[in-house]
Amino acid sequence: MPSTKGDVPLISPAQNGLAAENFIHQSMAIIMEDAVKKATDVREKVCEWRSPEQLKELLDLELRDGGESESKILQRCRDAIRYSVKTTHPHFFNQLYAGMEPYSLVASFIVEALKPSLYTYEVAPVFTLMEDAVLRKMIEMIGWEEGGDGIFNAGGSMSNMYAVNLARYHHFPDIKEAGLSAVPRLVMFTSQECHYSISKAAALMGIGTKNVYMVPSDNRGKMIPSALELLIKTAKSEGAVPFMVNATAGTTVLGAFDPIQEIADICEKYNLWLHVDACWGGAALMSNKHQHLLKGIHRANSVAWNPHKMLMACLQCSAFLVRDKTNLLQRCHSSSASYLFQQDKFYDVSYDTGDKSVQCSRKPDAFKFWLMWKALGTGELEERVDRALATARYLAEEIKRREGFRLVMEPEYANVCFWYSPPSLRNLPDGPELWKKLHTVAPVVKERMMKKGSMMVGYQPHRDKANFFRMIVISPQASRLDMDFVLDEIHNLGKDL
Amino acid sequence: MPSTKGDVPLISPAQNGLAAENFIHQSMAIIMEDAVKKATDVREKVCEWRSPEQLKELLDLELRDGGESESKILQRCRDAIRYSVKTTHPHFFNQLYAGMEPYSLVASFIVEALKPSLYTYEVAPVFTLMEDAVLRKMIEMIGWEEGGDGIFNAGGSMSNMYAVNLARYHHFPDIKEAGLSAVPRLVMFTSQECHYSISKAAALMGIGTKNVYMVPSDNRGKMIPSALELLIKTAKSEGAVPFMVNATAGTTVLGAFDPIQEIADICEKYNLWLHVDACWGGAALMSNKHQHLLKGIHRANSVAWNPHKMLMACLQCSAFLVRDKTNLLQRCHSSSASYLFQQDKFYDVSYDTGDKSVQCSRKPDAFKFWLMWKALGTGELEERVDRALATARYLAEEIKRREGFRLVMEPEYANVCFWYSPPSLRNLPDGPELWKKLHTVAPVVKERMMKKGSMMVGYQPHRDKANFFRMIVISPQASRLDMDFVLDEIHNLGKDL
Repeated sequence: MPSTKGDVPLISPAQNGLAAENFIHQSMAIIMEDAVKKATDVREKVCEWRSPEQLKELLDLELRDGGESESKILQRCRDAIRYSVKTTHPHFFNQLYAGMEPYSLVASFIVEALKPSLYTYEVAPVFTLMEDAVLRKMIEMIGWEEGGDGIFNAGGSMSNMYAVNLARYHHFPDIKEAGLSAVPRLVMFTSQECHYSISKAAALMGIGTKNVYMVPSDNRGKMIPSALELLIKTAKSEGAVPFMVNATAGTTVLGAFDPIQEIADICEKYNLWLHVDACWGGAALMSNKHQHLLKGIHRANSVAWNPHKMLMACLQCSAFLVRDKTNLLQRCHSSSASYLFQQDKFYDVSYDTGDKSVQCSRKPDAFKFWLMWKALGTGELEERVDRALATARYLAEEIKRREGFRLVMEPEYANVCFWYSPPSLRNLPDGPELWKKLHTVAPVVKERMMKKGSMMVGYQPHRDKANFFRMIVISPQASRLDMDFVLDEIHNLGKDL
Repeated sequence: MPSTKGDVPLISPAQNGLAAENFIHQSMAIIMEDAVKKATDVREKVCEWRSPEQLKELLDLELRDGGESESKILQRCRDAIRYSVKTTHPHFFNQLYAGMEPYSLVASFIVEALKPSLYTYEVAPVFTLMEDAVLRKMIEMIGWEEGGDGIFNAGGSMSNMYAVNLARYHHFPDIKEAGLSAVPRLVMFTSQECHYSISKAAALMGIGTKNVYMVPSDNRGKMIPSALELLIKTAKSEGAVPFMVNATAGTTVLGAFDPIQEIADICEKYNLWLHVDACWGGAALMSNKHQHLLKGIHRANSVAWNPHKMLMACLQCSAFLVRDKTNLLQRCHSSSASYLFQQDKFYDVSYDTGDKSVQCSRKPDAFKFWLMWKALGTGELEERVDRALATARYLAEEIKRREGFRLVMEPEYANVCFWYSPPSLRNLPDGPELWKKLHTVAPVVKERMMKKGSMMVGYQPHRDKANFFRMIVISPQASRLDMDFVLDEIHNLGKDL
């Protein structure tokens, strides 16, 4: 039997999948060994630093007309893993996520193999229902007793964008069709410590970054409610129309929580949509001990919460939740494409959730959270949050105890910010000279830790403060031994400066 | 040695990873057997249909305080796979993607295990460089001889959004800060056959869906250039400001290609940004034989192109490309967060590409395309496109040959649209009565194929046309035998209607 007729294959190579299966099988062994076991082994490096120029040479990136042998491709897989940063390594503290969560990882693998997309029930029945179950449970933890709605999407920035769009649509439904050019200037409010996605959303959505009024924060990084009210009055006196406030629950740098109750009072008084960006701090809702940090969150109109951060679901796992029960999400975003959302289907089309989304293809990220939640239970998730915050507390105490280390402020969450002074600076008087020198320490220590591959910890300047280290503590990724290691290692890397 | 001190674990469970490794190992065997081998086996079902109510009962979705045993979780993995649609099955033709691409799949697994995020070179060195290499090659294939810029992002809808935002920023850079309220009404143009994401982008970005002027298409589904010019003149006469045209290269339903050359002439004449939504049709650029479909694409200012569609990269793999060489992407979207984009780093920070993005966390989707491109070479990618279009051609000829089948129109790409008439309707005269009855055939055949699990093919009404089937042919997923099977099966399922 000929295998093609003209150009047209008689039998698809997809049906002769033995070679493909063998390749996947071999790759899985490499992934298990290099990307799971070695990547999470504390005795291995966090990264094997190469400059862009060196790495380009090592990787032979160019794409050519001819293909390569299977063994060459397997080697390329090994190399890609080798020179990648191991964000699952116990000494990776560089971002607001870290660690290897086996249940979530397995869910990710399943998703990749099945290639589902979440527009319609008919194409993703299992994952559509799981998303609904996870959203319901998260809504319960927020405390919206009458329920709500929500959607998982491609990151917290997008969740915040959804919030801005819903808030705007709620106040001015005509904007969806007519646009902003016929509307008075809209103004939104957020603290100066908020995530940069709030400004990005305002730019993208035609509101303009200047119309994001930045409310001053106190020394701890929390929005000052009286300053918020003042700015709302200012905006009104300018003839602009305030429409929403973003409160941050867990700021990116300092881990601060805005006072939601006071902000909610002001929002009620002025009829403003209250969004809580709890992408980072939402995890504290899991903990009886720490949920007070988000007191009042049940009064929010919408919440962004990323289980891929503190709760260690695989990247990305970001939920946007809304208290509304009138299908606002769908009304605001729908376009009713006839090739997806036919109304003459044989099942209840209210399960076709795709028209709530601004995306078309959408990955079933909720499954990565659902499977780990099933495996661990709410109880273990709570314990993890408690352990992370206890470990952060331990680190803060160590910093206060050790010579040369100094807290930027007491942590109230899992961000521990501190300076390290090498011995040469310890006797300098506090003043501009000292801070100028201290400012240069963190970048050099960072360079050295990267080149050594021993750990990754972030640093940044912040407002008037010189460069400091920001440690992010995530459990069960981080232990007391790891905290000790970080401080010892910073001293080892920087003591000659 | 005690394992905790107070709340604080001394040694992290992450360092006692043996149980986790065993679990992942066992899961991998299940994934290989159920989600790879069985899912792609033509003798197995495409889906095992259950209604939402049945499935909720089968899956026990509720999340509880206590966790579950490993064996229970493994069973949950098996169930999730079992009741999911197998989009990689050889008889899945329901969306603009299909099939299992082993190289891309392995790249996906690596990404999931490593958890990289693409904001900075320091966190994702390998994937940052790979994205750059893939973008360069795609830019070369578009024909932008002087190069360009680009970014992979979470789907074609988002790519189209980027296009609208860049076009707007290019004409009115002040909008980023000042917003739209101070600007005259902006108008954009697209064909009535375009993807719904264009309207969604206009709604989200404050332009308004009414300010998306829908240009009539010809019978083949291609934008009529003279109608475009007329609408531009209309908009100007209304005092509005035209700023961009979206041309679609491969429409969602009919697979039509707008005439880019003529549209580019008009864009030049009126100084409008030309975006080409080639999410679906971009693959034809790989083929010497078929790239004429996109003739003139090198004149576009920006292009959206999804390798996860015809080229079978794993979901999602979506590129946005822009001809500009003045860092427009960065200028339009940047917010310069100090905790990520420090300027005192020890490497060339032009490799920190995250500020080009409206997302913060961003997955390294380019790697999924890079690895398969390395393995297959441009040559094999070209052959796949040629085979897909030859197979679509074969299907169209079969439809013309077989009694009871009727093409909606000759395909020019991989969308084959057709009606099926059961014998009872074949002698009815052409007229409203026939079309009313035909309209009900496809939904019933669809219901029956889903419940049987034999295949998945989409259907929809379109403008004044009654419900028809839309087959999407993707190589090497689809063979001649599969085409024969689809037509035989539709007849078997619908002949009694």
